[in-house]
Amino acid sequence: MRRKEFNVDDPELYESFLEEQHDGVLTFIGTDGWPKAVPLNYVYHNEVIYFHGSKKGEKITGLASDSRAEFLVYQSHAFIPSYFTDPYLACPATVFFRSVRIRGHVTQVEEAEEKASVLAALLTRMQPEGGYSPIDATDKRYTGSLRGVAVLRLDPEEITGKFKFGQNLSETRREQVIQGLCERDLSDDPDTIKRIRDSAPKCPFSHN
Amino acid sequence: MRRKEFNVDDPELYESFLEEQHDGVLTFIGTDGWPKAVPLNYVYHNEVIYFHGSKKGEKITGLASDSRAEFLVYQSHAFIPSYFTDPYLACPATVFFRSVRIRGHVTQVEEAEEKASVLAALLTRMQPEGGYSPIDATDKRYTGSLRGVAVLRLDPEEITGKFKFGQNLSETRREQVIQGLCERDLSDDPDTIKRIRDSAPKCPFSHN
Repeated sequence: MRRKEFNVDDPELYESFLEEQHDGVLTFIGTDGWPKAVPLNYVYHNEVIYFHGSKKGEKITGLASDSRAEFLVYQSHAFIPSYFTDPYLACPATVFFRSVRIRGHVTQVEEAEEKASVLAALLTRMQPEGGYSPIDATDKRYTGSLRGVAVLRLDPEEITGKFKFGQNLSETRREQVIQGLCERDLSDDPDTIKRIRDSAPKCPFSHN
Repeated sequence: MRRKEFNVDDPELYESFLEEQHDGVLTFIGTDGWPKAVPLNYVYHNEVIYFHGSKKGEKITGLASDSRAEFLVYQSHAFIPSYFTDPYLACPATVFFRSVRIRGHVTQVEEAEEKASVLAALLTRMQPEGGYSPIDATDKRYTGSLRGVAVLRLDPEEITGKFKFGQNLSETRREQVIQGLCERDLSDDPDTIKRIRDSAPKCPFSHN
């Protein structure tokens, strides 16, 4: 994960990844001083990451005593077996993936209208087909639920994206990986091939 | 995530989940004091979680200064839309999932033979079809790579499993969810239905 070739500098790339995914892992320090990892659905809305959850429990108490957090969104795209590029050694075996890490402080949203708007955005992501009465702070059927749920916001201070699609490979090895994926043809492999081609370093002498 | 209904007490259940999955998120405290989240492939081998990675970087330096870690393995199985059980309110929308959190101290494996055996187990998980020379500390083609790679072990001190498949629902609502999944019939839905039935609280008066 240290190689600079995999760093994503273009905010459009990691923003579209954040908009596309549904869940990630929130990491914080518990009141016992230990690091904690909690899987959560989220919505990326107005450049802020929002979650919801219970008003009680380790997440709320931990973050109330230390608001520093890191949120990780990760997708594994393809396992690349070693024999795609090496007939003997196991070393080239790897995974192509996309990951985004967001670091910042987490605070609770207290105001009913903001809570309603966050939960509406979250449910629009999860249940785009609708099938429920709009989540509205003035709708009395939602008042109790809005009061009972915790809505948390993570304001990003630093966002780091790593997308690994063979950018560190020689052109020969990259073509061997593409050839291997073509032949294997799992359901995600055509998409991975496209990502490898799109991520390949541009040759300064090429016309592409 | 606080409901006790979802806790998994049977080690067989979370062990088979750990053996089935390939990746998770390692959480630790960085040298800057912030919580960190890193996605990693792992192998669960002899009741220990093993990872590999670079010998340099934030993971190694952070864990060298504070070896406390939590590793999370998570699988989202099904989004359950609110309208499966409620024609008006958005509140019942949820996700059925399995997650296991493992807390313990992380140490580096230094001995070449143990490193080779861990990497062999990891690759057997990822590339069961083989296609490479066995990873062996006495094979000179692997000596340099074995020296250059870091192998980390997390010795579990506490393992917590949460499998959420509607255990908190009334029998009527559980059947509505099963009916909804039957009609939706996404590729994972038959498996989710089985998990819902297997997780349902046993009625003390039933013959099942």
